[in-house]
Amino acid sequence: VLGPGLLGGSMLMALRAKLPGVHLRVWARRPEAVRVLQERGLAEVASTRLDEVLTGAEFAVLCTPVETMPALAAEMVTLQGIVAPGCVVTDVGSVKTTVVTALEDAFARSAFRFVGSHPMAGSERAGLDAARAELFHQAACLVTPTLFTEDAALDVVRSFWALLGGRVLEMSPEEHDRKVARISHLPHIAAAVTALAALQDDPSAAACAGNGFRDTTRVAAGDPSLWTGILLENRDEVFASVKAARDRFNELLAILENVDDRALHHFLQDAKKLRDEVT
Amino acid sequence: VLGPGLLGGSMLMALRAKLPGVHLRVWARRPEAVRVLQERGLAEVASTRLDEVLTGAEFAVLCTPVETMPALAAEMVTLQGIVAPGCVVTDVGSVKTTVVTALEDAFARSAFRFVGSHPMAGSERAGLDAARAELFHQAACLVTPTLFTEDAALDVVRSFWALLGGRVLEMSPEEHDRKVARISHLPHIAAAVTALAALQDDPSAAACAGNGFRDTTRVAAGDPSLWTGILLENRDEVFASVKAARDRFNELLAILENVDDRALHHFLQDAKKLRDEVT
Repeated sequence: VLGPGLLGGSMLMALRAKLPGVHLRVWARRPEAVRVLQERGLAEVASTRLDEVLTGAEFAVLCTPVETMPALAAEMVTLQGIVAPGCVVTDVGSVKTTVVTALEDAFARSAFRFVGSHPMAGSERAGLDAARAELFHQAACLVTPTLFTEDAALDVVRSFWALLGGRVLEMSPEEHDRKVARISHLPHIAAAVTALAALQDDPSAAACAGNGFRDTTRVAAGDPSLWTGILLENRDEVFASVKAARDRFNELLAILENVDDRALHHFLQDAKKLRDEVT
Repeated sequence: VLGPGLLGGSMLMALRAKLPGVHLRVWARRPEAVRVLQERGLAEVASTRLDEVLTGAEFAVLCTPVETMPALAAEMVTLQGIVAPGCVVTDVGSVKTTVVTALEDAFARSAFRFVGSHPMAGSERAGLDAARAELFHQAACLVTPTLFTEDAALDVVRSFWALLGGRVLEMSPEEHDRKVARISHLPHIAAAVTALAALQDDPSAAACAGNGFRDTTRVAAGDPSLWTGILLENRDEVFASVKAARDRFNELLAILENVDDRALHHFLQDAKKLRDEVT
């Protein structure tokens, strides 16, 4: 596991629980993170040195922010002599088209076989402290093969997410980015917009907040740096989904201006129908 | 309790738990609702007849949809001879300026003394089946006195919500409608817009939904008829808050178009700061 944050940490806990005998190694950029990993005994090896972590590795998961992945992959390739032949690599990046293209490039003709992944399991809380073994249980785990993907590597990655309890779904990187812009990136923006529009002019309204406000805006508490990276990396699809939402807001302004109760009921009914289908 | 839905039902359960000796009566429009109330033993008297429920009443809470409250109040006034003198009345309507004006009018120079309320406790689930005694625990309970409010009646209403475990906040009906448009009505619209923009063109994206999408859109599963009434009743303030959100969406479209990572980070950081203040 490369990067022991919420996802990487949860993965270590889940692997320890599901495969008690497995040999786990974890790479962290910061020495303090390594110390915490060692104290908690989350892996056999925890180190800031990539070579110590990759020696003999059969499977690796990149769990760092999306914008850092290409450089990390390039560094892994310089160490390809020390891994097990055909070491399978996946990642957990929230954007796939740019990331998969960059990582397929980086790992081409190396000892590594790469397949992109994105588990839909996160939290507004980041870091190892928020990690838990059940994070991936029942989560949609999107696997994004391309024409370059080897069947055997795809099988390994699918089995990995299934082992952690995920619901594995397969789609192209492009389809992933279009769907995830709508189902994850747009909700993040809607939560941020709602928090700003609700509270910026009068923060005292926060005292009146109920669970509706808390839930609708929860993800807006996520890490701004992480989300700036994600939204810009997928900006074409994000732009399209934000525009669709903006158009809906304009539609509602017209409905309210015209006091059109039938159109408003219709609008809310359509939204309810779609939301009711989500389990 | 007039109207045994989510709020009225939860109120009966909480009152029974907090004041075991209290004599509870509940009015319901539909005979089937009365039968369910009787079966569950939620009150000493359950009836479709308002006179049976109001005889000797010292305190009454209107828990019906906002648009039905004025007619119900008018009917209560025709029965004013049977209640205890100075019977205090409150309501749970999500909109206060229009409702308080209408109900103060209806109850003026009657045996009833009215004070408006709005507990910020709801759910996307409606009806008695979703009711629970703890619904009001720690919920902001907004009480909205006016120049016409009697101090003694205000005290009764404040004590009532405190008894149910709520955090009592006092403000004018106008301030209530402005704050609640932002903290409750806007989030409802944002949830509906997000569900529509995310899923209408491609409902298959629902299979990829994680907890972020679920929470951000949860309230969109609420009752469209109930919410049409609420949003139109408070339409001036709702319009202003929807417009503020629409403007934020336009701001984001420009940021994405310019690939302005600093402005995007700033936007998300501002939203996070405001959201982090909400407990």
